[in-house]
Amino acid sequence: MGGSTFGRLFKISTWGESHGKALGVVVDGCPAGVPLCEEDIQIYLDRRKPGQSVFSTKRNEADAVTILSGVFEGKTTGTPISMVVYNQDQHSKDYGDIAVCYRPGHADYCFDEKFGFRDYRGGGRSSGRETIGRVAAGAVAAKVLSTLGISFSAYTRSIGPHVIDYNHFDSSEIMKNSLYMPDKACAEAAADYLREVMTNLDSIGSSVECIISGVPAGVGEPVFDKLDALLAQALMSIGAVKAVEIGDGVAVSTALGSTNNDSFVAKDGQVSKTTNHAGGILGGISDGSDILVRASIKPTPSIYKEQHTVNSNLDEVDINIKGRHDPIIGPRAVVVVESMCAITILDLLMTNATSRIDNLAKIYS
Amino acid sequence: MGGSTFGRLFKISTWGESHGKALGVVVDGCPAGVPLCEEDIQIYLDRRKPGQSVFSTKRNEADAVTILSGVFEGKTTGTPISMVVYNQDQHSKDYGDIAVCYRPGHADYCFDEKFGFRDYRGGGRSSGRETIGRVAAGAVAAKVLSTLGISFSAYTRSIGPHVIDYNHFDSSEIMKNSLYMPDKACAEAAADYLREVMTNLDSIGSSVECIISGVPAGVGEPVFDKLDALLAQALMSIGAVKAVEIGDGVAVSTALGSTNNDSFVAKDGQVSKTTNHAGGILGGISDGSDILVRASIKPTPSIYKEQHTVNSNLDEVDINIKGRHDPIIGPRAVVVVESMCAITILDLLMTNATSRIDNLAKIYS
Amino acid sequence: MGGSTFGRLFKISTWGESHGKALGVVVDGCPAGVPLCEEDIQIYLDRRKPGQSVFSTKRNEADAVTILSGVFEGKTTGTPISMVVYNQDQHSKDYGDIAVCYRPGHADYCFDEKFGFRDYRGGGRSSGRETIGRVAAGAVAAKVLSTLGISFSAYTRSIGPHVIDYNHFDSSEIMKNSLYMPDKACAEAAADYLREVMTNLDSIGSSVECIISGVPAGVGEPVFDKLDALLAQALMSIGAVKAVEIGDGVAVSTALGSTNNDSFVAKDGQVSKTTNHAGGILGGISDGSDILVRASIKPTPSIYKEQHTVNSNLDEVDINIKGRHDPIIGPRAVVVVESMCAITILDLLMTNATSRIDNLAKIYS
Amino acid sequence: MGGSTFGRLFKISTWGESHGKALGVVVDGCPAGVPLCEEDIQIYLDRRKPGQSVFSTKRNEADAVTILSGVFEGKTTGTPISMVVYNQDQHSKDYGDIAVCYRPGHADYCFDEKFGFRDYRGGGRSSGRETIGRVAAGAVAAKVLSTLGISFSAYTRSIGPHVIDYNHFDSSEIMKNSLYMPDKACAEAAADYLREVMTNLDSIGSSVECIISGVPAGVGEPVFDKLDALLAQALMSIGAVKAVEIGDGVAVSTALGSTNNDSFVAKDGQVSKTTNHAGGILGGISDGSDILVRASIKPTPSIYKEQHTVNSNLDEVDINIKGRHDPIIGPRAVVVVESMCAITILDLLMTNATSRIDNLAKIYS
Repeated sequence: MGGSTFGRLFKISTWGESHGKALGVVVDGCPAGVPLCEEDIQIYLDRRKPGQSVFSTKRNEADAVTILSGVFEGKTTGTPISMVVYNQDQHSKDYGDIAVCYRPGHADYCFDEKFGFRDYRGGGRSSGRETIGRVAAGAVAAKVLSTLGISFSAYTRSIGPHVIDYNHFDSSEIMKNSLYMPDKACAEAAADYLREVMTNLDSIGSSVECIISGVPAGVGEPVFDKLDALLAQALMSIGAVKAVEIGDGVAVSTALGSTNNDSFVAKDGQVSKTTNHAGGILGGISDGSDILVRASIKPTPSIYKEQHTVNSNLDEVDINIKGRHDPIIGPRAVVVVESMCAITILDLLMTNATSRIDNLAKIYS
Repeated sequence: MGGSTFGRLFKISTWGESHGKALGVVVDGCPAGVPLCEEDIQIYLDRRKPGQSVFSTKRNEADAVTILSGVFEGKTTGTPISMVVYNQDQHSKDYGDIAVCYRPGHADYCFDEKFGFRDYRGGGRSSGRETIGRVAAGAVAAKVLSTLGISFSAYTRSIGPHVIDYNHFDSSEIMKNSLYMPDKACAEAAADYLREVMTNLDSIGSSVECIISGVPAGVGEPVFDKLDALLAQALMSIGAVKAVEIGDGVAVSTALGSTNNDSFVAKDGQVSKTTNHAGGILGGISDGSDILVRASIKPTPSIYKEQHTVNSNLDEVDINIKGRHDPIIGPRAVVVVESMCAITILDLLMTNATSRIDNLAKIYS
Repeated sequence: MGGSTFGRLFKISTWGESHGKALGVVVDGCPAGVPLCEEDIQIYLDRRKPGQSVFSTKRNEADAVTILSGVFEGKTTGTPISMVVYNQDQHSKDYGDIAVCYRPGHADYCFDEKFGFRDYRGGGRSSGRETIGRVAAGAVAAKVLSTLGISFSAYTRSIGPHVIDYNHFDSSEIMKNSLYMPDKACAEAAADYLREVMTNLDSIGSSVECIISGVPAGVGEPVFDKLDALLAQALMSIGAVKAVEIGDGVAVSTALGSTNNDSFVAKDGQVSKTTNHAGGILGGISDGSDILVRASIKPTPSIYKEQHTVNSNLDEVDINIKGRHDPIIGPRAVVVVESMCAITILDLLMTNATSRIDNLAKIYS
Repeated sequence: MGGSTFGRLFKISTWGESHGKALGVVVDGCPAGVPLCEEDIQIYLDRRKPGQSVFSTKRNEADAVTILSGVFEGKTTGTPISMVVYNQDQHSKDYGDIAVCYRPGHADYCFDEKFGFRDYRGGGRSSGRETIGRVAAGAVAAKVLSTLGISFSAYTRSIGPHVIDYNHFDSSEIMKNSLYMPDKACAEAAADYLREVMTNLDSIGSSVECIISGVPAGVGEPVFDKLDALLAQALMSIGAVKAVEIGDGVAVSTALGSTNNDSFVAKDGQVSKTTNHAGGILGGISDGSDILVRASIKPTPSIYKEQHTVNSNLDEVDINIKGRHDPIIGPRAVVVVESMCAITILDLLMTNATSRIDNLAKIYS
């Protein structure tokens, strides 16, 4: 199976290793006629690029994307869009010692057990660089969706104990701080905290949220391909994510029905809701409200502290992980979360297009 | 797309409405040669059956399963296993008023928007009865996995504010109380609490956990078909689930790398771990430890209290939902969670079988 | 994988064995709002039912279908349509001797090698009765397509050496003779010929064609999911089909480009063609002309003559196949071919609905 | 959907246009541990490369492949193998006039109808160059299969009226003549014939066969994913193929059951057959004999003769197609047919690996 393909109608296939020649993605099923250029993609990739701040790895990569197919005269043609980013700054020698050691919190051991051996350089396929393909594809999905009035706002919600204050939520702040937080004061406190974590040669967890606006009611399929179910797969598939929540998330486990239910009301001649505990999804189908998803992200497993582990000969050893690693994953994952949301929404929006015979009649009449 | 099919190799297709003639599932891709009989399935279905306690709907359904195909002389043949449960006690008249009203917390409005109309009787396809197909298929998956030494333990972790005490965890207790809690004292306190909720004509949220033992290292595919990603889809696809967590789950967002990383050690000639914050999954692939997943479940949206809403004419109305509904979803969802875990694990275990050329050589030599 | 699921958006999952309790199909992804009742399905099933003439098995089956889900108030709801046909006239004892013998031309040996054992009664899953699920699903697809102006005409093109004369093609004749041939004289000659074949305790091959009218240009995806490629899979998957041709088929291998190319012309303000060697498909995409497909069907492998074979102990034996078998497969396969065409066309028509951003805009504006 | 993905477990996604920057393929799900290098791929690509003889286009392309991922230290890692071939000799100006005209026998009109516009340069995605991705992926599949003792022999069976004489079949001859025919005399006669066709500014049809040896019994799934059904999709998806036959193919339509059935016999302690009319497939599952498939290929639609057609304004026009085109497609399609067979066989061989619980036990014990 391989597992590097996602989506049914808007289908993406990512490929590439951290220290291989290149990474990329093939997007199959993108609707024809959408304006698209490399700059559309590059803007997204730049948001996940290393070296943007003191909190992100110093690996020096331009991560410049090339579109190799599927776009003609500035528009998508409906055929596969192949995009590639060549690797430049691979310090493969830094990783020599992890060829035999199993780094705690990493997939080294699991890959060895699964495949019999592994490309150990920089984590190979399990590296965070794998997300380049997701983000390139996400940029395409977001561009398509923007033509239908659907937009995304993703941001860092918390870093360790520092959670944004929703009363001070300012979306214009997100792109102004290197932590992508929508709350300036919280971002500053989190930055101080992060410096302390780095001083301790440690790393810290975080959470990322995405608000999706403009999705019409009706998107998502009953039962297994529910909108929330596929968002859960999409986000949980991002390395380091250990929890996915929709709307009130885990808080629903202590809520009463009478308060958790959102009341329907009529507003501007449409069905609307007074609250949004459900996060815009009921029965797995969008209800027309904003969709709210949240991912909890574990601390970077690579830390500068010495750690105890075993090697492939079952010798117990202490290792110091060299190479370059961020003290936190969340901020660079913001655009990855947004990308996976865009891909999922577009795929289900396309699927929903054929849910009624009326829709088919509109197209084929 | 429809969305009623799950799994790649062990593929299930569920069908049926709450007040239709029957509900069921077709399981395609089940390995041949596994002993299977209707009793194996019935045991699972009985765990989700209504009417087991004062906390579950009084709908009187035997939920008796018939295997229609795919089993011969007591063993699976490798061809599709079709299973059916006929509905008996449909009080369809109880639901007359919801034909036009949109119940808060339910998918009525979303179905209307998606499909143009809906089978409103008992929620139709979005009813909890939809899970009958999942559980029947889950029973098959669990039977297959049991022959490979893989077992499941699912239980109610919390009901409202009442969370089990892990120091008093007693798995033998699970099947002894009607709330399926592994902590007798907690179960009793939760039962008292539930009675109070019922007196208030309200409902309450809960959480369910599943521990999966015996899964070898290597199960789960890199990138999108990660074991945790597909478990997240599997569990989030269960109606009312609003959050899925793996291992420490949301708690990782405030954890330090030095404490969140599980150290590898050698034990009995095998790689093992001293802790299991990761919940048995690293990089989306099983690491040989117990796998731990948790689902947060919202309170039953149908409550006996009067609620404010709109109807399909956009008139604002107050409704009293008649019919039969549970004050809590969690306990009856325990076997559904277990079933979805079993289906997901088996599917990825089968996928993993072809990840190495050595494995193919073993089979085809 | 199992292999009993077909279609991406209009997805069918068939199940059932020749002598099991029942056979059926689950149709997932059928657009909502299409009028549908059991009679729509029954008409199709009656066309493949045994016992219609002296040339078809005397097995006495009503093959009465029940719709168990997915239809409400006479219309499809968009949720899975489950249909079942219970077996009645299983003479399982007739098949006792084939439990150990491998019948020539049958899949007995292959099933044993694949699955380790098999349900040998009447061929189990490899019986022609497997097509009940296909035909039930095909009836649904044809009903949906009829609302969009797409129609099907399938018929027996040849029986042994008796090929219809296209100059005498009369579609009204098809339903008038039990061989489903659109040429009365040919049907009579073929009937005489068949009686002779039966006298010789033998069977004979045949071919079946389907003409599909009203498909708009643009249906079919480039590269692998070409319309002709999926029709080829669809028809070759019918037991006994050994060749599939589109348009001129095998004859193109000796044709010149200058004569094989169909010239485009303008007709009634639309692009049209003067000839149709291509069978309505260019580059895997419908061109708006009639689509023409042909299947070559082998003679029934079960014959009344004694045959030489081996059993599972590798003893060479002579067998006389008892039970009831037709001297020819083609006529009863006509409706199966038509059904598979309808399923394939609808699936790709739905897929094509999202090929252009304009189409999405039409639906979501 | 897009339609550029093929295979379930061994999944390939091709991309690229005739005159775009590059073409390529991503192979996901290739088993780990198989020795693989670029030379393995290049050998296959060289067999389809233009400019090999007077009968193939003079487009000057090295078609040099680069492996960008999925191979480490000379072995497949189990992660996606991305392969790319950059275009070099694009004479795009040659194609200016077809931007608005619909070439007879080509997909120009269909693409316009489907996508609203098209990359007209060299046929864009519908060009024969699209097969580069198939062949690169096929080379990988063939390499994997060779380690399991499975081999392929594909060749040109006929060119116009010149059909090979099976009594003079000499497989060593295939790679010795530029037409890839296994019969020297026939190849020479066909070459003379081809020169005449070229003199007439015309093109001619052909047929290609592939014999697959070493496939164990049991490969192929019942019902829709039959081995022959997926081979039919695989081959019919190759541009210009209009018929696919298995074993005796269309000839079965006039055969008697008593002669068409292959008798089983015991040979060397195994089940064998005395004849192979079935082409190695019974009930859609391999029977252990050689598998025989045949594709009928239409004449090249681009011819140097003037042709009548319409343009996108519905004006009727006469066109002379410039550019470079072969007088015959078959010989260069031989390696494409072989590649698609290899991909299909490997995919189903992998699927079959989990058909029995015994197999899973072998791997997980």
